[in-house]
Amino acid sequence: MNPGGRAPEGLSPDEDAYGQILLAVLEGRDAQEIMERDDGLIYAGDPRDYFAPFRRWPPVERRAMRFVRGRVLDVGCGAGRVALHLQERGHEVVAIDESPLAVEVTRRRGVQRARVLRLGDVDASLGAFDTVIVMRNNFGLVGEEVDAPKILRRLTALTTERGRIITDSVDPDRLDDPAFRTYRGKAGGTVRPRAQRLRVRWRTYATPWFYYLMFSPRELEQLVEGTGWRVRRFVDDGSPRYAAVLEKSR
Amino acid sequence: MNPGGRAPEGLSPDEDAYGQILLAVLEGRDAQEIMERDDGLIYAGDPRDYFAPFRRWPPVERRAMRFVRGRVLDVGCGAGRVALHLQERGHEVVAIDESPLAVEVTRRRGVQRARVLRLGDVDASLGAFDTVIVMRNNFGLVGEEVDAPKILRRLTALTTERGRIITDSVDPDRLDDPAFRTYRGKAGGTVRPRAQRLRVRWRTYATPWFYYLMFSPRELEQLVEGTGWRVRRFVDDGSPRYAAVLEKSR
Repeated sequence: MNPGGRAPEGLSPDEDAYGQILLAVLEGRDAQEIMERDDGLIYAGDPRDYFAPFRRWPPVERRAMRFVRGRVLDVGCGAGRVALHLQERGHEVVAIDESPLAVEVTRRRGVQRARVLRLGDVDASLGAFDTVIVMRNNFGLVGEEVDAPKILRRLTALTTERGRIITDSVDPDRLDDPAFRTYRGKAGGTVRPRAQRLRVRWRTYATPWFYYLMFSPRELEQLVEGTGWRVRRFVDDGSPRYAAVLEKSR
Repeated sequence: MNPGGRAPEGLSPDEDAYGQILLAVLEGRDAQEIMERDDGLIYAGDPRDYFAPFRRWPPVERRAMRFVRGRVLDVGCGAGRVALHLQERGHEVVAIDESPLAVEVTRRRGVQRARVLRLGDVDASLGAFDTVIVMRNNFGLVGEEVDAPKILRRLTALTTERGRIITDSVDPDRLDDPAFRTYRGKAGGTVRPRAQRLRVRWRTYATPWFYYLMFSPRELEQLVEGTGWRVRRFVDDGSPRYAAVLEKSR
């Protein structure tokens, strides 16, 4: 994850709820990832999912990995799940996350290049990338205000001519649970498409509020318009989460 | 549970987070019990524990059941775990909870007498009880203000001459995790011993804030002093949770 607008050194230990959770799992302690939305919706997930080996990923995510090529930037690397897999497949991977503890976990699990860094602070010093991975809705987690088109334009400069972005989202219209389709928080009506304000909590740790973006495949196409990128392909099996491969529109 | 000071008809469906969680588990849906303390501590537990059969209970709770005799009032019956067990053992049990959905779950699981009722609203119309069960810290869940001595005096009138109260607590000094030993919320310094203000949340449901009492065995003895009850026996294996059997001090 990558809740943005923060100092380059990343989240403080008290703010780094997400990293504290990952560290607990790595060290064999019991932990839950509690997600709180600013209109009061709250739920807990099993953070061991962030450690799942490739064979246990959702089919859509496994299929999306077929489109990875060359040198990879993994944005919001979490526990290093994707970076580890791609490194094992022989890719050179740079993994970044705003969570210092997530980066620590990623390193301890064997990822060779992992850095505490927001996407907004990546510059040419990291070199050019052939593939940028922005999975698990991290696309919506950048900045105090969601500005996905700005992020896309920024990625143009960081990628090679044949650069690709592999991203995913959950189509809110495909969710069964009405509580997740309805939103009455502060982001309502001001940020599109369908941004929600969330934070991660666990024990006394709480991240700053960040925006979490959910969009349908059609909304993604609209989002990408005019940014220098186009949706080259959807990886979509009809389940709520689908992936997309973006390439440069020349 | 029995967060008090509410209308006799119990918690509204929106407030009945605890009951919504139990109903979800009963119906095979995924649920988590999220506990939030008013100083920001938050954690999630597995609500399937409330459905555990006797053989899976913590040893202290199993041993405490040996002291049950006669007609039983089960206060804050939850999913009916204790009431079911005692009913199977041949006791006449009246189970009460302020959560209408908890009472529904308790009934659907086969408990014959379950009512939406706060302890503060129990009167002689329910008859006299030989044993009152107040387990899993429900002792601290009564009233906007914790007044355990008042509750104890009230129980005098509801019980027979040989009446017993079986209760338990977690001794905070035995907890490893410093986050659970430290408290900076609103109850700090005003309510003793060691009351904390909590609420249960899940999805968009949230109970009202209630007081949750934790005390050491010594503090329980002090609490009971002058109420007409005395601690007859502790059931204590040195683990954080211990039980106590109270009898009338004549």
